[in-house]
Amino acid sequence: MKLISFAIDGEARYGVLEGEAVIDLSDRLGARFPNLLSLIEADALAEAAAALSAPGPRHALAGLHYLEPIPGARRIFCVGANYPKVHPTGGVVSGPEFPAIFQKPAETLVPHGARLQAPTASRQFDYEGELAFVIGRGGANIPPERALSHIAGYTCLNDGSVRDFQKHSVWAGKNFVRSGGFGPWLVTADEIGDPATLTLVTRLNGEEVQRTGLDRMFFSIPAIIAYLSAVTPLLPGDVVATGSPEGSGATRTPPRWLVPGDRIEVEVSKVGVLENVVA
Amino acid sequence: MKLISFAIDGEARYGVLEGEAVIDLSDRLGARFPNLLSLIEADALAEAAAALSAPGPRHALAGLHYLEPIPGARRIFCVGANYPKVHPTGGVVSGPEFPAIFQKPAETLVPHGARLQAPTASRQFDYEGELAFVIGRGGANIPPERALSHIAGYTCLNDGSVRDFQKHSVWAGKNFVRSGGFGPWLVTADEIGDPATLTLVTRLNGEEVQRTGLDRMFFSIPAIIAYLSAVTPLLPGDVVATGSPEGSGATRTPPRWLVPGDRIEVEVSKVGVLENVVA
Repeated sequence: MKLISFAIDGEARYGVLEGEAVIDLSDRLGARFPNLLSLIEADALAEAAAALSAPGPRHALAGLHYLEPIPGARRIFCVGANYPKVHPTGGVVSGPEFPAIFQKPAETLVPHGARLQAPTASRQFDYEGELAFVIGRGGANIPPERALSHIAGYTCLNDGSVRDFQKHSVWAGKNFVRSGGFGPWLVTADEIGDPATLTLVTRLNGEEVQRTGLDRMFFSIPAIIAYLSAVTPLLPGDVVATGSPEGSGATRTPPRWLVPGDRIEVEVSKVGVLENVVA
Repeated sequence: MKLISFAIDGEARYGVLEGEAVIDLSDRLGARFPNLLSLIEADALAEAAAALSAPGPRHALAGLHYLEPIPGARRIFCVGANYPKVHPTGGVVSGPEFPAIFQKPAETLVPHGARLQAPTASRQFDYEGELAFVIGRGGANIPPERALSHIAGYTCLNDGSVRDFQKHSVWAGKNFVRSGGFGPWLVTADEIGDPATLTLVTRLNGEEVQRTGLDRMFFSIPAIIAYLSAVTPLLPGDVVATGSPEGSGATRTPPRWLVPGDRIEVEVSKVGVLENVVA
């Protein structure tokens, strides 16, 4: 299933994509599950599937006002330097011994279709296309061989980065409000199988600027889950962004910083395309 | 006022310290303000002061089950390397050009009196005594000269750190669950005046291990607020920990790692003493 969070008349709702329509689950399940997170926390994706045939509203996908797949996600973990590349703030990334984790708060991200906010404090605004996943079943010290079973689903993420501030601290570079994108929807894990077989492509104004197989990560998704869950117990609804390959604007000659009107698309095979325009 | 969050019979409450008693504000104000955060968000500290003379329950401070001053704080920003010192993971800290910010989630901290949880994945568990403050009035791009007026109050924080994991990433070193302390209460800004005049002392099993005047920070509290609010609009209830001076266990010869039974006290003059024992 492709699970979508969206808004109608300012009201947050969620549903399942079927062709070019969204079957609204808020009316069908909403009394018990007010949002996608509550469905994931209750491990009740099967109930969502069962509810699809019940009567209730459908909406056209075209013109839908998307929300982030997990609106206001409580924790968004990101893996830095997880592909071989020139590092956007200097140096070369080649096989670190441990994952380099940082966290982004939800207010740094906007949903599919929403405008990105260029920082006023810097011109060095950059994109990073990534695969992200959402934890379904939580746990501490999760062994890698069981890690994939803890994933509810997959989506795309643009880890918007401000490179001069990133030299102050990872936090500063990655925490500008509405600087990145998250969506368009959550594809449940059963439709993906092994995420290492997927391909990630980022386009800037239609031109391909990043491309990688997800098998090129230094730390695989099972390794990331094992590491994270050794530091902090993972919870349903936790979001994990898995890192970005070579090709971000900072590493181009000359650097290609984002400017108003730029359109960034992050596409992951079997998942979908996240598209945002810089305001 | 000293504003305290606490629990009675598992119910979260808050009040004001008066001598050795806590005047319970949950009954006096609770219908409108269910917790300290809501009071701060409504800029209603004056109503708390006015409510103190109303009839209602008082509790003995002795034996009180403390909660964090802002339970489940949505954002906790920390300033790294903000004092001249040997850095706990190597090198010497001397006058960085920009603040080094990182973020801790609320689940890394326990309230005054609660047990700290030693990591199972590492033995290099360390303390860092700090002054923390809580934002009262939010804002973006706050100029330093107006910054102190955005603070609701001050408290103590132990930024518990796991040094071998901190070499992987700041996140990994600072995000172990229940590894630090936060409290005991929030002292409103009107009682503090200029925070640079305060003194911070950390004691380990009664022995003084850190001592500094808060005027020794590289980035003053106004400078920190100006920097943070240029990256992300600050919100009421945001917590900011201002960095720790020399003297943490990693920089001792031999290193002094925390072990079960160790008692850490973080004392800030005019604020109070945060005490936690390692479980």
